[in-house]
Amino acid sequence: MGRPMADARFNRSIGRRGVRMSDVACLPISSGWYRRKVEDTRRLIKVQCYSAEGTANFYMRPIEGLTVLLDIDTKEVVEFVDEGRDIPIAKPSNTDYRYEVTSKNKQPARVRPLNPISIEQPLGPSFEVVDGHQVKWAGWEFHLKPDPRAGVIVSDVRVTDPDTGERREVMYKGFASELFVPYMDPTDAWYFKTYMDAGEYGFGLQSMPLVPLNDCPRNAYYMDGVFVAGNGKPYVRSNMVCIFERYAGDVGWRHSESPITGMEIREARPKVTLVARMAASVANYDYIVDWEFQTDGLIRVKVALSGILMVKGTPYTHTNQAKPDEDLYGTILSENLIGVIHDHYVTFYLDLDVDGSANSFVKVNLTRQYTSPGESPRTSYLKASKQTVKTEKDAQIRLKLYEPKEFHVVNPGRTTRVGNPVGYKVVPAGTAASLLDPDDPPQLRGAFTNNQIWVTPYNKSEEWAGGLFVYQNKGEDNLAVWSNRDRSIENKDIVLWYTLGFHHVPCQEDFPIMPTVSSSFDLKPVNFFESNPILAAPPNLEKDLPVCRAAASA
Amino acid sequence: MGRPMADARFNRSIGRRGVRMSDVACLPISSGWYRRKVEDTRRLIKVQCYSAEGTANFYMRPIEGLTVLLDIDTKEVVEFVDEGRDIPIAKPSNTDYRYEVTSKNKQPARVRPLNPISIEQPLGPSFEVVDGHQVKWAGWEFHLKPDPRAGVIVSDVRVTDPDTGERREVMYKGFASELFVPYMDPTDAWYFKTYMDAGEYGFGLQSMPLVPLNDCPRNAYYMDGVFVAGNGKPYVRSNMVCIFERYAGDVGWRHSESPITGMEIREARPKVTLVARMAASVANYDYIVDWEFQTDGLIRVKVALSGILMVKGTPYTHTNQAKPDEDLYGTILSENLIGVIHDHYVTFYLDLDVDGSANSFVKVNLTRQYTSPGESPRTSYLKASKQTVKTEKDAQIRLKLYEPKEFHVVNPGRTTRVGNPVGYKVVPAGTAASLLDPDDPPQLRGAFTNNQIWVTPYNKSEEWAGGLFVYQNKGEDNLAVWSNRDRSIENKDIVLWYTLGFHHVPCQEDFPIMPTVSSSFDLKPVNFFESNPILAAPPNLEKDLPVCRAAASA
Repeated sequence: MGRPMADARFNRSIGRRGVRMSDVACLPISSGWYRRKVEDTRRLIKVQCYSAEGTANFYMRPIEGLTVLLDIDTKEVVEFVDEGRDIPIAKPSNTDYRYEVTSKNKQPARVRPLNPISIEQPLGPSFEVVDGHQVKWAGWEFHLKPDPRAGVIVSDVRVTDPDTGERREVMYKGFASELFVPYMDPTDAWYFKTYMDAGEYGFGLQSMPLVPLNDCPRNAYYMDGVFVAGNGKPYVRSNMVCIFERYAGDVGWRHSESPITGMEIREARPKVTLVARMAASVANYDYIVDWEFQTDGLIRVKVALSGILMVKGTPYTHTNQAKPDEDLYGTILSENLIGVIHDHYVTFYLDLDVDGSANSFVKVNLTRQYTSPGESPRTSYLKASKQTVKTEKDAQIRLKLYEPKEFHVVNPGRTTRVGNPVGYKVVPAGTAASLLDPDDPPQLRGAFTNNQIWVTPYNKSEEWAGGLFVYQNKGEDNLAVWSNRDRSIENKDIVLWYTLGFHHVPCQEDFPIMPTVSSSFDLKPVNFFESNPILAAPPNLEKDLPVCRAAASA
Repeated sequence: MGRPMADARFNRSIGRRGVRMSDVACLPISSGWYRRKVEDTRRLIKVQCYSAEGTANFYMRPIEGLTVLLDIDTKEVVEFVDEGRDIPIAKPSNTDYRYEVTSKNKQPARVRPLNPISIEQPLGPSFEVVDGHQVKWAGWEFHLKPDPRAGVIVSDVRVTDPDTGERREVMYKGFASELFVPYMDPTDAWYFKTYMDAGEYGFGLQSMPLVPLNDCPRNAYYMDGVFVAGNGKPYVRSNMVCIFERYAGDVGWRHSESPITGMEIREARPKVTLVARMAASVANYDYIVDWEFQTDGLIRVKVALSGILMVKGTPYTHTNQAKPDEDLYGTILSENLIGVIHDHYVTFYLDLDVDGSANSFVKVNLTRQYTSPGESPRTSYLKASKQTVKTEKDAQIRLKLYEPKEFHVVNPGRTTRVGNPVGYKVVPAGTAASLLDPDDPPQLRGAFTNNQIWVTPYNKSEEWAGGLFVYQNKGEDNLAVWSNRDRSIENKDIVLWYTLGFHHVPCQEDFPIMPTVSSSFDLKPVNFFESNPILAAPPNLEKDLPVCRAAASA
């Protein structure tokens, strides 16, 4: 990450701010591409620093306005910007989040601690991991692989048809292809913070070992990653992925009859799923990615965000010190600290192969249909019209609440008994869309977020949504460029891309570390099975549940 | 529900279709309001019937096209429509979902059954229920009451501020105020199916006893409902609500440092929540409503749908028998059965009282801001602008992905230490919007779904979004009407209304009973606490977890 420490100006500036050099912690920040000449000839990185004095949470003590631009190859300081000398460094109090520190807090707890709670499986898990990577559970089979760039890759996903016993293909490969995290502050020390975490930092390289009992429940199994270091030597990232059966007390299906029918029916089934989890800590931010497999054929992909905000130093200690209409680019979280507004986008590569690779993408348009005069006491209803998409451009989709659609990947060569094409659909849930100008340099590079859904024909060189070579690129080779070729996608091996987004306007609850927020999308069978595949599932019975007592220490 | 059985025409029609009268099961269907003269002078109900021969799942055997309109008061048959005589009644095979039936299936299981899994708390729950209804858990306190119309009502919700110990007000009252479930088939036997389940049937009255170990986990506590029958006598609906601590293996917050900083930090905390659940079975459909309280101050309201589709008989046994461009109004699920497209809307009444009742509604508009020429290498960023809403009409909100907003309820009289107004925000997730014509009779009655969010001043007579008297009403007294008065809502006791929606295009996996689908929204603290309220939470330690062994039967 270069040597700002060797620069005299840097040392003077740090000293002038009263920070000891031994307390300085610096971050290497991808510099992006901003139509600057220097970007054409050098490989660059920006370095900004913090004071780690009095806290492990140095992120909350920015040395604001001090930015060093380094040449990655020559270690040369290319630019040195030293603004914000009048901005005090925020105090360290109440920023350390480590249990060894917080547990020494002498204040009496205002809230009674919770009794122990645990997911227990005394007969062991119901899944097995064969040859280190092949996971089998409840009729599902898939290959699970830690990856330095994507985090984890799920591949060759098959599910057993309960009617026939056939192991049916669902997905050839799925993974987080790229992230885009633009901060919303155009000033000198901030404008370039528009990270693409997979291609620039390595979403897997930044995945640290999971913490047993806390990152994953007690019944989890852990898988290591084996990666290659810069010097070509292999190394092991232990406990990088966990796999566990999840039971949250939810219901798989249920029905009761009301007394009016005279039938005393009370049927319900517990919902148990299988989760494969990783957690990447890309400097301050932590991303938890779950691939959750359900017994009804649904796959839920969930991204949860935690970790630490990227904050900005400010002279203000109270909102009333800001000038009227002054744009703070965020929220004052504490004295001298602003949590800067930013977005998160995670774009998933989803090469579904529904009963084989020859698939089509079908939009099911839900539109208001009017009845003819005299046809009905109703004047309107919702009609579903299917449209098989021929080429890529017609599969560039922005979600609209008032123009709802379903998005099916079907196998046009295989139908159910009554003639419906077998398929899976991608089901968005809460998400966000980038509002940056499409011609703004960061959005040109992050153009894979211009739509929430894209469908492309399979091409082995089109796996990374932001391009194979992301660092300092100009957006010349990414998903948006590929899709605009408008190739045929009908009855072909196709790849669906889905982008999950978050707008984050920080609030004080995010200080000094953020409670998890999450969102997800689903891959859901749609006329893939002949009928509900979990109809025969047995209910929970008391006689089958474990016998537990308090821990020895209680 | 009247006496169609006494009608000779009805008996003849049933006989002609080969159904024994002892196998006939009929449903009372609210007739709505469709600008028909008869609706002005009579209280009406429509009756349609099914054959329960060979299955408990009579819903899958509709006697299609036979509709009897009854006068509720006189029991008189007002109209008798007998169409669809040529539509066969679907076969009963593979429709019964009861375990006593499915467990007798002789076919070998294609999928290995799962090992037992359970949420265990050997030291007991961490919550207490005082005086039968007052729930206390992890600093939360609220009153929980089964209600015949709303299902459950959560009231006087307070949370302990971990900094001060103060028990701070969050919500005066919250509940499911009304449902709207329009089916999307305008033909004679279907157009009127536009249910308003709370006001027409009673969302609580239709909540049957929960099934221990299956509707709720083993560690659940159950609460009875006490209601009044039509004859004025009280009765007990046992186990109508369950309360349990939920641990799904998820993370409350986490952070790891990467090797670059030289700090070996691996902090993570498990996420444990408290759920209050009910499940209403409004004839065929089952709605599970969860109020989930998190230790970080967040309240998640989740609605899950299961139960049985309302299906339509058809002469078709294969999709290729339908005429080109014929509108089936749904999906062929099985021979002679169409799952009809429909929507679900659940409108919640949320009387937030953030640190008292004088609150304001603030829209935080996230918009693209352009930089001035030369100001920055960036040309655009996302800016958050706050707008305190003065009157009701400006709080009629339709969600748009490309016009994102946050929706805050703040106390303008109280700020945090650095000056942010204390607040809670409503955070939508996946939802759907009604596409019916606003002047279509059902949408006039369901006009409370015209927007996803409304804010009204508190008025004790404005609690039921579809009007106090819903049955056969004309939409003359509902949330849309109230809100159009455009009253002041600034610095007042205000009520926020949020509508959660689902479009449901049935698929074969929904036959003969539906795997659960769910969606939710959150009430989330926003600058309500000075900082992350769960920072001091301890991690899980092995020594605190229970010691379990397999059940005695294993």
